[in-house]
Amino acid sequence: MNPEPVRVRILVTGGTFDKRYNELTGALTFEDTHLPEMLRLGRCRLDVSITTVTMMDSLDMTAADRAAIVDRCRHATESRILVTHGTDTMVETARALAQGCPVSTGKTIVLTGAMIPYAFGSSDGLFNLGSALSFVQVLPPGVYIAMNGRCFTWDRVRKNRETGVFEGT
Amino acid sequence: MNPEPVRVRILVTGGTFDKRYNELTGALTFEDTHLPEMLRLGRCRLDVSITTVTMMDSLDMTAADRAAIVDRCRHATESRILVTHGTDTMVETARALAQGCPVSTGKTIVLTGAMIPYAFGSSDGLFNLGSALSFVQVLPPGVYIAMNGRCFTWDRVRKNRETGVFEGT
Amino acid sequence: MNPEPVRVRILVTGGTFDKRYNELTGALTFEDTHLPEMLRLGRCRLDVSITTVTMMDSLDMTAADRAAIVDRCRHATESRILVTHGTDTMVETARALAQGCPVSTGKTIVLTGAMIPYAFGSSDGLFNLGSALSFVQVLPPGVYIAMNGRCFTWDRVRKNRETGVFEGT
Amino acid sequence: MNPEPVRVRILVTGGTFDKRYNELTGALTFEDTHLPEMLRLGRCRLDVSITTVTMMDSLDMTAADRAAIVDRCRHATESRILVTHGTDTMVETARALAQGCPVSTGKTIVLTGAMIPYAFGSSDGLFNLGSALSFVQVLPPGVYIAMNGRCFTWDRVRKNRETGVFEGT
Repeated sequence: MNPEPVRVRILVTGGTFDKRYNELTGALTFEDTHLPEMLRLGRCRLDVSITTVTMMDSLDMTAADRAAIVDRCRHATESRILVTHGTDTMVETARALAQGCPVSTGKTIVLTGAMIPYAFGSSDGLFNLGSALSFVQVLPPGVYIAMNGRCFTWDRVRKNRETGVFEGT
Repeated sequence: MNPEPVRVRILVTGGTFDKRYNELTGALTFEDTHLPEMLRLGRCRLDVSITTVTMMDSLDMTAADRAAIVDRCRHATESRILVTHGTDTMVETARALAQGCPVSTGKTIVLTGAMIPYAFGSSDGLFNLGSALSFVQVLPPGVYIAMNGRCFTWDRVRKNRETGVFEGT
Repeated sequence: MNPEPVRVRILVTGGTFDKRYNELTGALTFEDTHLPEMLRLGRCRLDVSITTVTMMDSLDMTAADRAAIVDRCRHATESRILVTHGTDTMVETARALAQGCPVSTGKTIVLTGAMIPYAFGSSDGLFNLGSALSFVQVLPPGVYIAMNGRCFTWDRVRKNRETGVFEGT
Repeated sequence: MNPEPVRVRILVTGGTFDKRYNELTGALTFEDTHLPEMLRLGRCRLDVSITTVTMMDSLDMTAADRAAIVDRCRHATESRILVTHGTDTMVETARALAQGCPVSTGKTIVLTGAMIPYAFGSSDGLFNLGSALSFVQVLPPGVYIAMNGRCFTWDRVRKNRETGVFEGT
């Protein structure tokens, strides 16, 4: 346990976490991330820096988008990195990160997301954020997915499309 | 990382976490705990069992109340235990737990709480719950306090009464 | 002012009011109406009966759907009727009601809706519901649109598509 | 129905409506009113001006406090006035207003409040605010209490202390 607040880099990529309801069009859209507001609500006392890499539905993510995320992780000066991400292709991005930021880089990378947008009141996002920020502080270097209170290594997890739940494999 | 959901015992003792507004009297009171609802909101997939030990403001807690909490921890069959607790005397109860459930018992005990009642909308409770449930899964045996995204060992923490924030010592 | 709670019929037709976020598909959908929950939250003490006529985006509403709403109003035993409706074609349905349920039927009909789904936390729905239920109790027979705290007769209102606000004409 | 937004004066006096939870002391307190935020949430398009007369629990209200509220109503340039007020002595203040601002002054005065603080998430306040703002626009001069979707003249209402509900007498 550190006497000083741990430094964590949060990379925002969009996903359900940050979806909003556009009241003029009735569509779900992205604007600025809710992460600062969520950290304020959680009264988070870590030394957190936030970077928005992209803002998209993870189903629309291309290899180039994933390469940009990997690149940000590689060049981050922090060794503890949280990535917010849509759940549909979170496992794919985790795999790309495991390849591009291997354990030898000394980085602990945790991906998390939400099933319900934070802006929609009854979200699991705040719970997942608190959970992921804890795992990222204490786990050894590697790439992990933290959802629903659980944590999986990148190569031992899948999203069950029927239940919406992440499961070990 | 476990392929199966980790078993966690949650011991509820009250605190701001579970305060409600009584609309007939205008006073803050305790009724049933919000923990099941919070775990549902967080879509928590751990193997959690909840026991309500007491429901009180931690300023009203006596040595006998603390002994009851220690007793529940000693006799729990789970080795990972989360205690929800008022913040005002959380450090005292942590000390009692460290004495009554020493590291040799093999138990990882994490205390957490909230500055704002969960029922009041803008609570830090859901964030702290997610955070504490993660720490309790991965930390070695011992007694810890998890608040504001941080985690402290029981003997290296105090609550700053002026700011309401837990700090390392 | 009535010594007894006024009888009001609520006809539910869907609209933004009742949209939900489907966490498996990520789409906005309709299921059961939130009206009972909203009336409970508002501690509403009127003698309210709720009928779900349809559950749809008002952009998808056909002449047949409007005829069904008019029919329900004509045959309602209550003289005070609230219709929840999507905002995009609320004025069209108001016109159909004015023709099908003329003032001579003695019915006071108020249409209302929301710009943000009730389920999404920061909704204007609860405010509009309280507002519309008041207007429907005290206005003389006729067809009205109640939005944003204001009330318009059916033939003197339009929705400003750019601002999302209903205006007098 | 007015083609222009109706002018309404809101007089804020505190009450459950505006109670907050002080996270340092754990007590319920008053700071600034939530009215502007509530009107924004309800996307209210009336021509509203807000004056904070006092901020107190209505059980603490003295004759002098009531005289100050009456005075503000008498001198308001608006003929439509909404008073937010604690529910415990709302009927008393309504009586003082009926005496100090008789029907001959041409003013329509509506008192409203909440059983649960707006800041606590599941409040009836937004519903009551929407309701009261509608009644104040359309009722003839006089003093009224609007709660739970209903509206009572000042001399035909009492608060049932056991149920917390306002009833006609």
